Amino acid sequence: MFAGLDEVVQFLDVFKFNDSHIEYLKKQMPQAEPEFFEWLRGIDSKSLTVHGIPDGTIVFGKQPLLSIEGPIAIVQLIETPVLNLLNFATLVCTNASRMNIKSGEKVKCIEFGLRRAQGPNGALTATKYSFMGGFVGTSNVYAGMLYDIPISGTIAHSFIMSFDDETNIDSHCHIKGTNVLTRAKEFREELKWTNTNDSELCSFVSFACSYPDKFLALIDTFGTIKSGCKNFLCVSLVLSELGYQSIGIRLDSGNLAILSQEVRNLFIETGKKYDHDYSKLTIVASDGINEDKIRQLNADDHQIDIFGIGTNLVTCEAQPALGMVYKLVEIEGKPKIKISEEKEKVLLPGRKKVFRVYENETPSFDIMLHEDEEDLISANELTAYHPFDDGVTVTVKSPTRIDKLTQKLYENGQVSFKTKTIHEKRTEVLEQIEVFDHAVVKSDEKTYEVYLSKK
Amino acid sequence: MFAGLDEVVQFLDVFKFNDSHIEYLKKQMPQAEPEFFEWLRGIDSKSLTVHGIPDGTIVFGKQPLLSIEGPIAIVQLIETPVLNLLNFATLVCTNASRMNIKSGEKVKCIEFGLRRAQGPNGALTATKYSFMGGFVGTSNVYAGMLYDIPISGTIAHSFIMSFDDETNIDSHCHIKGTNVLTRAKEFREELKWTNTNDSELCSFVSFACSYPDKFLALIDTFGTIKSGCKNFLCVSLVLSELGYQSIGIRLDSGNLAILSQEVRNLFIETGKKYDHDYSKLTIVASDGINEDKIRQLNADDHQIDIFGIGTNLVTCEAQPALGMVYKLVEIEGKPKIKISEEKEKVLLPGRKKVFRVYENETPSFDIMLHEDEEDLISANELTAYHPFDDGVTVTVKSPTRIDKLTQKLYENGQVSFKTKTIHEKRTEVLEQIEVFDHAVVKSDEKTYEVYLSKK
Repeated sequence: MFAGLDEVVQFLDVFKFNDSHIEYLKKQMPQAEPEFFEWLRGIDSKSLTVHGIPDGTIVFGKQPLLSIEGPIAIVQLIETPVLNLLNFATLVCTNASRMNIKSGEKVKCIEFGLRRAQGPNGALTATKYSFMGGFVGTSNVYAGMLYDIPISGTIAHSFIMSFDDETNIDSHCHIKGTNVLTRAKEFREELKWTNTNDSELCSFVSFACSYPDKFLALIDTFGTIKSGCKNFLCVSLVLSELGYQSIGIRLDSGNLAILSQEVRNLFIETGKKYDHDYSKLTIVASDGINEDKIRQLNADDHQIDIFGIGTNLVTCEAQPALGMVYKLVEIEGKPKIKISEEKEKVLLPGRKKVFRVYENETPSFDIMLHEDEEDLISANELTAYHPFDDGVTVTVKSPTRIDKLTQKLYENGQVSFKTKTIHEKRTEVLEQIEVFDHAVVKSDEKTYEVYLSKK
Repeated sequence: MFAGLDEVVQFLDVFKFNDSHIEYLKKQMPQAEPEFFEWLRGIDSKSLTVHGIPDGTIVFGKQPLLSIEGPIAIVQLIETPVLNLLNFATLVCTNASRMNIKSGEKVKCIEFGLRRAQGPNGALTATKYSFMGGFVGTSNVYAGMLYDIPISGTIAHSFIMSFDDETNIDSHCHIKGTNVLTRAKEFREELKWTNTNDSELCSFVSFACSYPDKFLALIDTFGTIKSGCKNFLCVSLVLSELGYQSIGIRLDSGNLAILSQEVRNLFIETGKKYDHDYSKLTIVASDGINEDKIRQLNADDHQIDIFGIGTNLVTCEAQPALGMVYKLVEIEGKPKIKISEEKEKVLLPGRKKVFRVYENETPSFDIMLHEDEEDLISANELTAYHPFDDGVTVTVKSPTRIDKLTQKLYENGQVSFKTKTIHEKRTEVLEQIEVFDHAVVKSDEKTYEVYLSKK
């Protein structure tokens, strides 16, 4: 899922060496001629033209995502920042999209990764692009403010632990005249759940009294089923009496599949006893969730409604780096190649544009054509060649639809495509996943091929 | 290797909610009372006292790195930023330190990770803390400028590929009246290396003419031994005639151990033929280097002088996240505990200070004492208890040296310890590694224990 183009555009807009940069470089390169630094002072991105694939598009290996034309020295100077800005954004957006797809239609994913990201800015990038990849919200409040992304979170363990048996919460545990703690203890008595932790109950009551319509409790501090879930239900029964509906609970340790089933059953049973429908209370689960765990949880028929995913989302633990590269493919009209003993590492020479060929409204394969070959796509028959397997070709007759993915993105220091908000891109990402071949994006069963023209 | 304290101090110094933050939060929490937002507007870090271990210290699991005291709501609000700022800094500093130790005394490590970090700021953090961990430089020029870290790099493949056989470099390939290209071709003829790539030779000559005393060539574009290394030597022979000494070459693909040996042999042989000592020319190697590869390269008796490490340094691929946590351990003088079914996950309650006990000037173990137990360390006999293995104790009689690691770091909005530059910290890191038990830090053979007092 290609992402990060906004960041590249922002970088190009401000790309300029200032006096302090030049001074530093002069000290580092005493042998360089003064004219070099004068040249450096004068350059900016106005001499560059960028073609590429708009972000939010599903892309594949070997495709030129951006193609940057201009004086070679300037094109070369921006290599590393461009790679830096695209690599992580694309990686984390793809990772989020994969996790979201694997979670299935009924389960939502929220990003919880701030504490494990590479600093505050790494975290902001992770939040922004995991939202674009299909996550529904973040626990990063500042990111929520900057990008207008829904924020969400639950109580911390330390909030619960800050209470104890003797904490006097009497003065602030009333709703509409009812002492919520006393009433919750009455339900506990009635339900014969006398072994739940008292300080935990106090903390839940205190939270519920502040946010009676937003009560979501973290239940694993003193035992998920034997204390947390039961205390949550006692407080929820009081809230129900008073006309409020609790939101639900968060699991943060243990066997999440089994615990979520036990919690769901206890919700249903307890609700029934008092004539409330507690079957739809939300179960949030966190604790090292990644793609493998999601797969296992699905197989174990979990009862979770929301995954809170942090570490494995932002560090992309399954593949911590995306190996996007920036290569010279053409100079003064001449195609350029870099040889390697590994076929797959040989650079595909020449300026290429990417087209997506559809069959029955489903993407069938992509083809890269040289700049001067665009008319091939309007011919009656299109033959596509595998880039590495000699002799492997595909021929399509009168394809119903071919999308040109490569667009002009930046020219003369100006953006030359319709920019979109992160919300619009997110919608497009989700729509594309539905249109795309199910076997490719939802199950990894099938490889999607990227072909070349004969030339 | 504890790192990131500078970032935490900088954060504490500016911790304050401004009007736009308050406005955003009001919209997000319409049910909260106006007094809450007034309170929020008034808070800052002045009410916090931070004790902890200065950064640049070797630390171990279960130790309280920072201990933050103050009103619980404020202490709680800063949890996530503090973890964010410490986790990655400590992880990458530790990772760099491990790689540097594994590389051995003769080999230096340079950070090449900008393109794979989590954005520009993630990259800056990686550069700063890998330098502190013992790296000698970076390819990130901006980080070099900000932190006064030596910058270093080599030619890019695209520089080499931008030349071709017909590129006319005659007008700028002279040094002291000598046509370097012509003379290099004469050496090539003499050495019967006629199959080297001409455009590569042109690119090397062009670079050497601009930087005759900084000639370091990337040699794997058209074949490392058959072309790159030979072209490098032809140009170096011209430079030697003219009174310049080349720096060396960079390997970026293939079997780095074998290639470095072949290159070293070709250096020595060729130097001998012309009476130059080429045995000390620098061999830089990059290409997915990590701890495992370093171990393998050492076993294969490589001839590399400098490792350029990018991806696996900044993404900390061997362990992409550090699981530092922030827990409530004491409230109003009462110790607090969080129970878990896994013994190792049980929180150690109470405010603890860390002491390092030496035997024969080598750290032997660490012990955590409660605040009010400091006099234990001046007693004749100190008994230390294992935190999880009941009955495991160590008793030391009159230890020669006990260092108190925990210091007061921040109070009343002010730093209360002697801050150091990144260069000073780097020196301390390297010195500590020498003083520390060899079996612990250099070979992973031995576990270093962290004990508790009986209390």
